[in-house]
Amino acid sequence: MPHFPPTQPWPAITGLAYGGDYNPEQWPRETWLEDVRLMREAGVTLVSVGIFSWALIETDEGQFDFSWLDEVLDLLHGSGIAVDLGTPTASPPAWFFHRYPESRVTTADGTRLGFGSRGMVSPSSPAYREAIVRIASALAERYAHHPAVVMWHVHNEYGAPVFDDHSETTAQAFRDWLRERYGSLDALNAAWGTAFWGQHYGRWEYISTPAVAPSVVNPAQKLDFHRFSDHQLRQCFLAERDAIRQHAAQPITTNFMANQHGGCDLWEWAKHVDVVSDDHYLVAADEHPEIGLAIAADLTRSVAGGMPWMLMEHSTSGINWQPTGIAKRPGEMARNSLAHVARGADAVMFFQWRASRRGAEKFHSAMLPHAGTTSRIWQEVTQLGADLTAIADLQGSRVKADVAILWDYESFWAQDLEWRPVDDLDHNERVRAFYERLWRDGVTTDFALPSHDLSRYRVVVAPAQYLLRQADAENLTRFVEQGGTLVVSYFSAVVDEHDAVSEGGFLASLRTALGVEVHEHLPLRRGTTANLQWENGTVTTSDHWQEDLRLRGADVVAHYADGPAAGAPAVTRQAHGSGAGWYISTRLDAEALTHVFDQVYAEAGLSPTRPPRGLEVVRREGPRGSYTIAINHAENDADIATPGTDLLTQETGRTFCVPAGGVRIIHET
Amino acid sequence: MPHFPPTQPWPAITGLAYGGDYNPEQWPRETWLEDVRLMREAGVTLVSVGIFSWALIETDEGQFDFSWLDEVLDLLHGSGIAVDLGTPTASPPAWFFHRYPESRVTTADGTRLGFGSRGMVSPSSPAYREAIVRIASALAERYAHHPAVVMWHVHNEYGAPVFDDHSETTAQAFRDWLRERYGSLDALNAAWGTAFWGQHYGRWEYISTPAVAPSVVNPAQKLDFHRFSDHQLRQCFLAERDAIRQHAAQPITTNFMANQHGGCDLWEWAKHVDVVSDDHYLVAADEHPEIGLAIAADLTRSVAGGMPWMLMEHSTSGINWQPTGIAKRPGEMARNSLAHVARGADAVMFFQWRASRRGAEKFHSAMLPHAGTTSRIWQEVTQLGADLTAIADLQGSRVKADVAILWDYESFWAQDLEWRPVDDLDHNERVRAFYERLWRDGVTTDFALPSHDLSRYRVVVAPAQYLLRQADAENLTRFVEQGGTLVVSYFSAVVDEHDAVSEGGFLASLRTALGVEVHEHLPLRRGTTANLQWENGTVTTSDHWQEDLRLRGADVVAHYADGPAAGAPAVTRQAHGSGAGWYISTRLDAEALTHVFDQVYAEAGLSPTRPPRGLEVVRREGPRGSYTIAINHAENDADIATPGTDLLTQETGRTFCVPAGGVRIIHET
Amino acid sequence: MPHFPPTQPWPAITGLAYGGDYNPEQWPRETWLEDVRLMREAGVTLVSVGIFSWALIETDEGQFDFSWLDEVLDLLHGSGIAVDLGTPTASPPAWFFHRYPESRVTTADGTRLGFGSRGMVSPSSPAYREAIVRIASALAERYAHHPAVVMWHVHNEYGAPVFDDHSETTAQAFRDWLRERYGSLDALNAAWGTAFWGQHYGRWEYISTPAVAPSVVNPAQKLDFHRFSDHQLRQCFLAERDAIRQHAAQPITTNFMANQHGGCDLWEWAKHVDVVSDDHYLVAADEHPEIGLAIAADLTRSVAGGMPWMLMEHSTSGINWQPTGIAKRPGEMARNSLAHVARGADAVMFFQWRASRRGAEKFHSAMLPHAGTTSRIWQEVTQLGADLTAIADLQGSRVKADVAILWDYESFWAQDLEWRPVDDLDHNERVRAFYERLWRDGVTTDFALPSHDLSRYRVVVAPAQYLLRQADAENLTRFVEQGGTLVVSYFSAVVDEHDAVSEGGFLASLRTALGVEVHEHLPLRRGTTANLQWENGTVTTSDHWQEDLRLRGADVVAHYADGPAAGAPAVTRQAHGSGAGWYISTRLDAEALTHVFDQVYAEAGLSPTRPPRGLEVVRREGPRGSYTIAINHAENDADIATPGTDLLTQETGRTFCVPAGGVRIIHET
Repeated sequence: MPHFPPTQPWPAITGLAYGGDYNPEQWPRETWLEDVRLMREAGVTLVSVGIFSWALIETDEGQFDFSWLDEVLDLLHGSGIAVDLGTPTASPPAWFFHRYPESRVTTADGTRLGFGSRGMVSPSSPAYREAIVRIASALAERYAHHPAVVMWHVHNEYGAPVFDDHSETTAQAFRDWLRERYGSLDALNAAWGTAFWGQHYGRWEYISTPAVAPSVVNPAQKLDFHRFSDHQLRQCFLAERDAIRQHAAQPITTNFMANQHGGCDLWEWAKHVDVVSDDHYLVAADEHPEIGLAIAADLTRSVAGGMPWMLMEHSTSGINWQPTGIAKRPGEMARNSLAHVARGADAVMFFQWRASRRGAEKFHSAMLPHAGTTSRIWQEVTQLGADLTAIADLQGSRVKADVAILWDYESFWAQDLEWRPVDDLDHNERVRAFYERLWRDGVTTDFALPSHDLSRYRVVVAPAQYLLRQADAENLTRFVEQGGTLVVSYFSAVVDEHDAVSEGGFLASLRTALGVEVHEHLPLRRGTTANLQWENGTVTTSDHWQEDLRLRGADVVAHYADGPAAGAPAVTRQAHGSGAGWYISTRLDAEALTHVFDQVYAEAGLSPTRPPRGLEVVRREGPRGSYTIAINHAENDADIATPGTDLLTQETGRTFCVPAGGVRIIHET
Repeated sequence: MPHFPPTQPWPAITGLAYGGDYNPEQWPRETWLEDVRLMREAGVTLVSVGIFSWALIETDEGQFDFSWLDEVLDLLHGSGIAVDLGTPTASPPAWFFHRYPESRVTTADGTRLGFGSRGMVSPSSPAYREAIVRIASALAERYAHHPAVVMWHVHNEYGAPVFDDHSETTAQAFRDWLRERYGSLDALNAAWGTAFWGQHYGRWEYISTPAVAPSVVNPAQKLDFHRFSDHQLRQCFLAERDAIRQHAAQPITTNFMANQHGGCDLWEWAKHVDVVSDDHYLVAADEHPEIGLAIAADLTRSVAGGMPWMLMEHSTSGINWQPTGIAKRPGEMARNSLAHVARGADAVMFFQWRASRRGAEKFHSAMLPHAGTTSRIWQEVTQLGADLTAIADLQGSRVKADVAILWDYESFWAQDLEWRPVDDLDHNERVRAFYERLWRDGVTTDFALPSHDLSRYRVVVAPAQYLLRQADAENLTRFVEQGGTLVVSYFSAVVDEHDAVSEGGFLASLRTALGVEVHEHLPLRRGTTANLQWENGTVTTSDHWQEDLRLRGADVVAHYADGPAAGAPAVTRQAHGSGAGWYISTRLDAEALTHVFDQVYAEAGLSPTRPPRGLEVVRREGPRGSYTIAINHAENDADIATPGTDLLTQETGRTFCVPAGGVRIIHET
Repeated sequence: MPHFPPTQPWPAITGLAYGGDYNPEQWPRETWLEDVRLMREAGVTLVSVGIFSWALIETDEGQFDFSWLDEVLDLLHGSGIAVDLGTPTASPPAWFFHRYPESRVTTADGTRLGFGSRGMVSPSSPAYREAIVRIASALAERYAHHPAVVMWHVHNEYGAPVFDDHSETTAQAFRDWLRERYGSLDALNAAWGTAFWGQHYGRWEYISTPAVAPSVVNPAQKLDFHRFSDHQLRQCFLAERDAIRQHAAQPITTNFMANQHGGCDLWEWAKHVDVVSDDHYLVAADEHPEIGLAIAADLTRSVAGGMPWMLMEHSTSGINWQPTGIAKRPGEMARNSLAHVARGADAVMFFQWRASRRGAEKFHSAMLPHAGTTSRIWQEVTQLGADLTAIADLQGSRVKADVAILWDYESFWAQDLEWRPVDDLDHNERVRAFYERLWRDGVTTDFALPSHDLSRYRVVVAPAQYLLRQADAENLTRFVEQGGTLVVSYFSAVVDEHDAVSEGGFLASLRTALGVEVHEHLPLRRGTTANLQWENGTVTTSDHWQEDLRLRGADVVAHYADGPAAGAPAVTRQAHGSGAGWYISTRLDAEALTHVFDQVYAEAGLSPTRPPRGLEVVRREGPRGSYTIAINHAENDADIATPGTDLLTQETGRTFCVPAGGVRIIHET
């Protein structure tokens, strides 16, 4: 049962916020009037303004022109539409690139990135740092008390399209950061293992960014550089946040990209924002994009500590920056939006309000498409506005989960480095497979770090915890001892925080919890599969990977029927303390995972609802009651037995038919 | 019926010219004597000389050595072989690269391109401009009155291998060109939509070339840069042309690459040459390369305004710069050559006379191959020389077409920019599909711009007119009103000349002509197809694309049986004025297009001959009569009913058998 | 029967050397004690030390610290383990990169490669040359008389990961090398064919390295640059070798990469080392990697002139720098090791002794894996140590071959240049196909250059001799005249040493020996095959290539049943002098080659043993007797009839069963 703190920072909006990015500077003033009229028609309550407006506000260095923005904010306020005011620092102006060419991003191969795009410069550039504080302060000073402004939106999608930089300025900052981190060169040389390949550093100034070199660069250096780059971006955010806070009291956010970027450690970032917000775009190549969406939403809620969050951007239909931009089918936008709400979002926002006629994203869908108000999209946008009003009661309610999946950005960064045993060890694929099993079983999951207090969960799943600190391994072991069920998949607990193989070998730090040793990785040839013999007699296939697994207390749940490890254990379970530790040494897909999870649920005392295929069911609980949100992604109607009132239709009953493609939001009685 | 102007510039050669590039500098003087002897044996009448000879003529800056060239020209003239004298400016000498390193090409990522290849430097370089005028003037002055020289060949294949440049010199020239084009920064900012992603320019000097940036660069900027780069190359050509004209009176050409490069807007270039010439190479990966060849030839004739043109380069057999260099089969070289003639070429030239022993193209076939005069190729080369003499009568005759396909380089440039709804919107594929339908139906086509006077055509086809100016849309609408049949395929009329989505949405500018609205693009997933239900009951499949199409006056010809637009219109026809506007909102291949074109031909009063598969039939008409050229690309003999005399065999009859792989050229009686 | 010279340089080790790279600097001192204890347990007799230790020995320019190395060498010597002492010049220290930034490698596109990897700098850098002599001299001076040091190991894998460099320093060195090679610019212009594409050089200083240019760079220039780059690396080696020799008398080697790198001309390099050594890694993607291994071993033995050689590196199991790192199966490491021994290796060494916990190769297998001494790998490592002791008697014995395959690095370099008739003319594939035929027939082969004295062989095979000097063609012709059988595959004898097509056309220089002319290359479309009709009535398929082949004395053995050359000769044989010349103008796989080699063996008087599939049988002969090594790669047991004693089991008999996966080493009686 979630905890409801008496107060939490939230923008001054009633109900669930609805709206999108609004870029009036792309349109003549007469269009603005139409915009606010149509926003009201659609039920829009909140718009993000100014995200890319630097050059039009600070027209030259230190010269400000707020007139057009004054007018826009007044107009919006006059129509009752609140504003999420952006700082435009994701795209410095042409004059900045021209005056500070040394701030331009240098890629790993020495290329300098120019202007003319969604520009970004080096996050370590002193000139940039100075400029962002100046523009953020100026905006905050002017609009701190503007009645339209209910929140602040710093920057845009930190890390995209520029995450790291290899300029000399950045190299210097990296050295400073390392000196702070390691204290001495001896410590750094030890941590990085510079004895390998003769990389010993005799002086700090010899260290550079991991730019292009004759072969692969030291993985510990690359991992630290990723940490540093994340840190530098966060410093930029904090500088802006603090500048705003000097003048203004509204909540401050920056829009994350949960599972769709991976550059920034959002667990760390979330500590520094008042409200967590997220951008999410369906992956067209994904045949079940609703599952990727659910991962994004659950992850966002988890980094937000279970508190309500904002869906800051998604799309009404197709996206033009994927190889194939699949348009959403009728009803799909509503299902997507309400799935985010089901998993804790209290705001549904789009990129963007009105489709741009010009520029790189003119084929990106919008709330008001090129085809105008006679279009299908516009009809669905206005209907969604009405629906969100109908379910305003959900605001502030929470989602509870008994299962957590480990999601550790740092481990993913490490796993993504070069020269692993095979080059397709894909943590996203593994997380998705385990998550999909739980999603299809109707089991709501949180995401967590291995260092978190896990005692609230009955089951913790580690699909891809390649990097595992000793203390975190002890935390997981304690979780098992105290009655939890831990499920670990292969290529976990391989290295420590410096990407060094754990003393004692692979998986050594989890040996107590799992009761097995991994002696050798046995990757399978691409395109081959091998049979798995389960103790219950079933045979399934798996692929990609086997291991030379030695039992050190665990029982065998399945063994390899063929492949390089033929005859040896494949899946094991060890009773340890009051709990159990499972280990899966091969690649099982969501289907094959049934063999593991049937038993896991049983021993953890969980009763998965196993809804009809394609039916997504999530509960939110709040001070005003509990809500079951049922979203039918399938092509057949499905029934759900939940006594209550469907807030969307005001229908009351004990069971509800969720029509194919439809949604029910049942206020439980 | 073509119009025959009393005079047109044409080199002083009798009959159809025959020959190729001749590079004597690669061979010792004794070989030259053998060359001219064998040229006479092969029937060669014209050779292109000096294309890559800069360093051997201007041995150092301003120092000229014409002695070897004098000798070569005298020798050729003495043997009755005319010369197309090249300016060698496509490959500046080593000394130029060394003296003017700042003239070297800079790629979008900042790489400087060096010497040692088919070198080219920045077309905007002042040093290069000065140097090309000097060498062109020197050549023209010396050889203006040499009796061998019947024409001038400026440069070689403008745009290959270097089309654009990102040096600071070019950036400055780009700014000048933009200032001229837009007059004010306000106009430029509006046209480019710089409000998007914060790209506003406050000063001219902030603008650069669209070099590499963190994400995609402003599409309007890239489109203008393409226009500018084309313009700069043309300025180079004009400088040389004018320098030659100061001294010499012979016709001046430069060799185009019709549909095989796409960099230069040949409609514009053709205005400035005296004679249009083209290079064409079969695409080995194409299973029916004869259709690609026909497109090239028809396009070349079209940019030449219907006037005779020269095939300046093609190959006797295999090419070594494609992944797989397929050798031509016996008879194929003659079929290729005569297909060009059929479509208006009055010259058949090859790259090159004698196969090079050294360098990058030594595995490229030639008229005189490494295997020498006992080879199959040499036999066919001499036979072709004889055949061209036999059909000399065709010289000056013309080709007439009732159908035009829109071929708009500028639209193609725009369509090829990034972040379209899907990344495989291929205009070449669409043009080919429609062209192939017409080719297989025996319907000869011209190519045209949407701004052209189209009244001479009964049918105009727009397979891929993504960019359409408002005035051009009005021209097309007028064409329909006045009785024409317009056939438009999907993703047409999407943007204006600045790559901005047309006001009113996709296809809005053609709504009057077509009677439909496009509300949304509905791309299909890769590899999937969908059924199309034609009003006549037939079902066919299509792929790649569907649209949310709304009828605004048009009738449905086919609708979608499945896919995201299931049930909605797919192909429509609207009667408008005295004509009709067809719209096809999905990807139909040449076969499926039969369903459209059967009706199109009927309503346009065209009677397609539908020759046996693989038989290509084209007519030329001239003051000395009409000629039917029949080329059999198939493996079976085919008959053709055309009373007359086959000029190749002097056979006379009313019907002729065109043997498998053979050609008939019938002077009609 | 091999010749046994009375003395040859060989490190002072008894029996077959066993061990690996040992990098104690990666571990604390206490681990060193465990290391030597376990080395003794495993039977290790030799370790390579110091390969990557530059920064820890020369801590700053000219400042040396030998203390740790003293200690390591003493410790090893105290345990009776000999040392192969490395010079650490493959990876210059951080201080070197920092002090001499102009020594960094510049790639063809101008990128400068930095530090942090397996660093290497420009082999032409004067600062680097000076530094390597200093460190090599210092090491030699100090350890010349250390009793542990039995040999010197210069650098590591010359050419990987850096082979060439495009800095201005290198460009200057290239010009000097060219001036030396050609004497005059006229000679260079002629050899490079600079008349093509206007590349004439008027001054030496205009010449640069073949860096990135607008199109492909002159192939003769690229070929010479490859020769030059090989030469520069060799100069580095010679400088170190001579510096060591000033002080020390032990044999000097550097580890080659036989058929797995291709950058260096090992025929030339082998002249300058005292002992040939080789690194070999199984290619995971290869379904029969034992054949690639055998090529490596035979090639290494051949460049060593038939003398014993050292396997300096291979792996105990999986490798982490290939896309999929396949672990070795039980017994496979021993089969690999003993296959090298069978083909002449007198040392079996691994990379590396103890698996690294840190750095880029921590997932690379080792003698002592992360799983420690309870692991399968360790058990097999100690067993192999015992086995090598059991067969110590083989030391110094030799391998004899009646067949040679031409392996000409220079020809491969030339063939790999751009713009060949097709882009997949793969010499490795052709060599492998012919080698596999011989391997499966139980015929042991040497490799040779076409310039070698070939009189000791009965059959010489040229699977891919694209570049063939006139004198070498004459050598091959003489070989045939004097009774040899020469088998030549397509795309051979195409160019001379300057990559110029031979005068007289393709294959002209071998016309006397083969009795055919190649008029034209007729590549097949990708994915298509064509039938071949053999004179004995059989029909097989071939692919990739056909030729327009004209008989000039040869007899037809097979002709094309279809494809572009249908009806024409495909495989020919000409009796010439006392021998025969075969020509194969299409791609035959190892299976189809049976049709050729059945007859070749018969006419050459060879009796191939044709062992059961997967059984590898090789003989070594020495002063102490003859040895048959039988290695069973198959999954079924196989018998071998060789009277004698199996040295591994001391079993005696007349026939032996070689168990599936097992090895027999029979001292013949």
